[in-house]
Amino acid sequence: MQTDIQIARAATKRPIADVAARLGLTYDQILPYGHDKAKITHEALAGLTGTDGRLILVTAINPTPAGEGKTTTTVGLGDALNRIGHRATICIREASLGPNFGMKGGAAGGGRAQIVPMEDMNLHFTGDFHAITSAHNLLAAMIDNHIHWGNALDLDTRRISWRRVMDMNDRALRDVVVGLGGPANGFSRQSGFDITVASEVMAILCLARDLADLQDRLGRIVIGETRDRQPVTARDLKADGAMTVLLKDALQPNLVQTLENNPALVHGGPFANIAHGCNSVIATRAALRLSDYVVTEAGFGADLGAEKFLNIKCRLAGLAPAAVVLVATIRALKMNGGVARADLGTEDVAAVTQGCANLGRHIENIRSFGLPVVVALNHFDGDTETEIAALQDYCAGQGVQAILARHWAMGGEGATDLARAVVDLAEGGAQFAPLYPDDLPLWDKIETVCTRIHHAARIEAAPGIREQLAAWEAAGHGRMPVCIAKTQYSFSTDPTLRGAPTGHVIPVREVRLNAGAGFVVAICGQIMTMPGLPRSPAAEVIGLDDLGQVEGLF
Amino acid sequence: MQTDIQIARAATKRPIADVAARLGLTYDQILPYGHDKAKITHEALAGLTGTDGRLILVTAINPTPAGEGKTTTTVGLGDALNRIGHRATICIREASLGPNFGMKGGAAGGGRAQIVPMEDMNLHFTGDFHAITSAHNLLAAMIDNHIHWGNALDLDTRRISWRRVMDMNDRALRDVVVGLGGPANGFSRQSGFDITVASEVMAILCLARDLADLQDRLGRIVIGETRDRQPVTARDLKADGAMTVLLKDALQPNLVQTLENNPALVHGGPFANIAHGCNSVIATRAALRLSDYVVTEAGFGADLGAEKFLNIKCRLAGLAPAAVVLVATIRALKMNGGVARADLGTEDVAAVTQGCANLGRHIENIRSFGLPVVVALNHFDGDTETEIAALQDYCAGQGVQAILARHWAMGGEGATDLARAVVDLAEGGAQFAPLYPDDLPLWDKIETVCTRIHHAARIEAAPGIREQLAAWEAAGHGRMPVCIAKTQYSFSTDPTLRGAPTGHVIPVREVRLNAGAGFVVAICGQIMTMPGLPRSPAAEVIGLDDLGQVEGLF
Repeated sequence: MQTDIQIARAATKRPIADVAARLGLTYDQILPYGHDKAKITHEALAGLTGTDGRLILVTAINPTPAGEGKTTTTVGLGDALNRIGHRATICIREASLGPNFGMKGGAAGGGRAQIVPMEDMNLHFTGDFHAITSAHNLLAAMIDNHIHWGNALDLDTRRISWRRVMDMNDRALRDVVVGLGGPANGFSRQSGFDITVASEVMAILCLARDLADLQDRLGRIVIGETRDRQPVTARDLKADGAMTVLLKDALQPNLVQTLENNPALVHGGPFANIAHGCNSVIATRAALRLSDYVVTEAGFGADLGAEKFLNIKCRLAGLAPAAVVLVATIRALKMNGGVARADLGTEDVAAVTQGCANLGRHIENIRSFGLPVVVALNHFDGDTETEIAALQDYCAGQGVQAILARHWAMGGEGATDLARAVVDLAEGGAQFAPLYPDDLPLWDKIETVCTRIHHAARIEAAPGIREQLAAWEAAGHGRMPVCIAKTQYSFSTDPTLRGAPTGHVIPVREVRLNAGAGFVVAICGQIMTMPGLPRSPAAEVIGLDDLGQVEGLF
Repeated sequence: MQTDIQIARAATKRPIADVAARLGLTYDQILPYGHDKAKITHEALAGLTGTDGRLILVTAINPTPAGEGKTTTTVGLGDALNRIGHRATICIREASLGPNFGMKGGAAGGGRAQIVPMEDMNLHFTGDFHAITSAHNLLAAMIDNHIHWGNALDLDTRRISWRRVMDMNDRALRDVVVGLGGPANGFSRQSGFDITVASEVMAILCLARDLADLQDRLGRIVIGETRDRQPVTARDLKADGAMTVLLKDALQPNLVQTLENNPALVHGGPFANIAHGCNSVIATRAALRLSDYVVTEAGFGADLGAEKFLNIKCRLAGLAPAAVVLVATIRALKMNGGVARADLGTEDVAAVTQGCANLGRHIENIRSFGLPVVVALNHFDGDTETEIAALQDYCAGQGVQAILARHWAMGGEGATDLARAVVDLAEGGAQFAPLYPDDLPLWDKIETVCTRIHHAARIEAAPGIREQLAAWEAAGHGRMPVCIAKTQYSFSTDPTLRGAPTGHVIPVREVRLNAGAGFVVAICGQIMTMPGLPRSPAAEVIGLDDLGQVEGLF
């Protein structure tokens, strides 16, 4: 059997200009990066007219080590929609370079449902993340430089929240002291590094509508406080213009293609815990303008990813999905039903049915946004007919179609049933509304998401949390949506509680203001923003083979 | 009068595929980056056949604040050679992004002798420096990770010389403590960051012949010592393969064009003090194979830049220049003759003649390598005829032509006299030989350069230097060339001593082994490897104007 990378390398890619032409874009409207990648220019984006296509969100049950295949389904559905005669474009996130040198790199999809060129997308791609790193760290350098030269803004060096970033798994940088070595090197203070995808600049890039909006948002970033506790912004440091210059190319969405030569926009990649976890607004909006259907995905399971996609991205960008695809696998349902990973090969219909409690809760959640939903059963070879029937029975009981999809093995052809079901749903109309209004108090927003989506009995606040939220409301930040950062493995904050737990309490340990991105983060668990490398990092076996191809990355 | 950036923006650029076609390269042999930049593929490089063209080095007298116009002359000469009927390609270094946010960014040339696109070349360009940053920092992360997981190699954490890098002016990172915050974050130790151009990875990329040679060199990097003082390499940490993967695209030279649409390879940019300060070997070799003439430049004045170009780059890459162009200006000669910057507008023939002592010494130095030399007088509007005549008289006395060149004002047309003189010299044949043989002891190599090129009376060693050099010789590193790191403003180590000082002593304060790049650095003065931002950094005024063009960068 061929591996993902073998399939990807055997693909017959079309010149990227031809893929652009499929979208109606001329060669002058793209900036090629090699022969198989391009950016769509700001000029082309500004000139897009016509009406928008329909937006389809692909999300999933809570992730398990068994794998769900959310991206694979996104790609397969996009290919299938094209195959049944619709002009469909796929929108997904870019991969972070650093983690690929720890664990094996992630493909963009899998099997016959992939986006290429896989190597480039797992390495530097078109340089977007490097640009974000530069912009983020320029602001950091300007902060310490401002203090060094007299600190006219009276920054409190104990209360600078803006750290530095690097696109690398480097635990030694989590907690550092900078500015050692004497007066020429500035004032010493404790700080640290996050991985680039955790940067607020990443979230901002993914929510900005255009260059002007990007600069506005960058200027609103709060980097710390003055000695009298007033917030200090990137604009106060006059960093917003230069940061925008560093990001001007990165803001242009990247065009690549599926194995079946259909267009895919791969752009932006914010964390799905401390940020909203979706590809850029600018890519999604461009794709909608250029296509009949846009298939996109959200990070993690539907309780985190879809919730943020809907309450943060769609709200802030004025987007309204037409339908939602909820991906499940028999294997993952069995794990949610209590089966250990080692036993997944054994048929266990009872476990499938028990695991469906997790699926059912996500269906209920999605419907609470006024959206129609279809379940995509991403087929694995070991799935038995009885297990599949158990899932389909469960879904029928919920009034939801569960469509068997074989895109992993067959490409778009394997997902045409799913595509037809999606078109039917999307044509039926949706009544999308975010879960809470803008003017609900911040605390109530957190409570709404945690009780209605995560199904907690209640939330608890660490000391000072409510006061902090009230202070931000007083400062004019009260209309922002909230972003819950918690484990993706469970509705609760205990990652081992699979299925559909009830009665759990979600403790809000900390809140953070992302004034530039435009949301308030509620930290409800241990969140790691700078990964480390494992004992035997993938980097040790990554190299070029005799043909100059990358080995060990996949 | 138009500024450099106004001229550059008004340029009529040809599609980069057309520029490549001028070199005989097909579209498949390049990787476009937008419409005005491209990389030449590894496959195309490997397939280049035929004979090499002639290599012309452009260097200069010791730099002064008055400016010499070395890059401008390199570009003007390249354009002029094309204008008189030769196929000429220009090879220069890439600019570092970080410093542009401190002081105003550097143009690639000036006036009518420039390389475009100027903005891109001063920002992310094709991402080469970001790739170097990633590769460098991956090795750093693997070092701390190795220690964290048990330190099987018994690394002495007090003797790790491999720091981290960032392409940013950030003084607070010069001296840091990493690994704070408890056991999960690794072992605490003192370290720091350099700017990316100071990375040994940069020097390696610029000296590697191909991907295999790149990996060999990366593997030889010495990152520190074990507890029993044995060197530990990147290969010991199994980092060389992954670093090569991160650098595989960056190793491909970048093709851009002059204002007159002639080809220019802009690739690599090592420091000219702690490294050799020239564009990549791979670019120079490709250009030689593709052209009749290749015009390249070396960093700083001829005593540092040309010396390293000849003794390091040409030696290691097997290159032999056909002629050298020594750039001078009346203004810079006057400063070398003792005139203050404020008084440069006043005619001062005596100062010109006195400043010619600096020029004369560089002429003598270049001849000591067996190379023919011509002086290019880069014309400024305020130069008087009498001053110009004084320079030409001086040069005639040295048996050297001094050609007035007006490429800044006129483009290639202004440098055709210079081009013809260069062709005459180059056709006359050169007997190039490096200044010292490979098997001279390291200490003697340092002494040879310092006494014969920098004209020091003698050199002095800090304690332990000679023992260190002897230890490296015993370990098999004795055949490497040496790289002198000292001030570029004077033949001495006192930057205020312009002209042609004698009797000075050069103290060797520290030596460093760059086993991967393949040279030993002798530090003879304060060398800054991480710049800081000024009180009012350029970043504060950099931004996009209403047309989306970059303001404040130039």
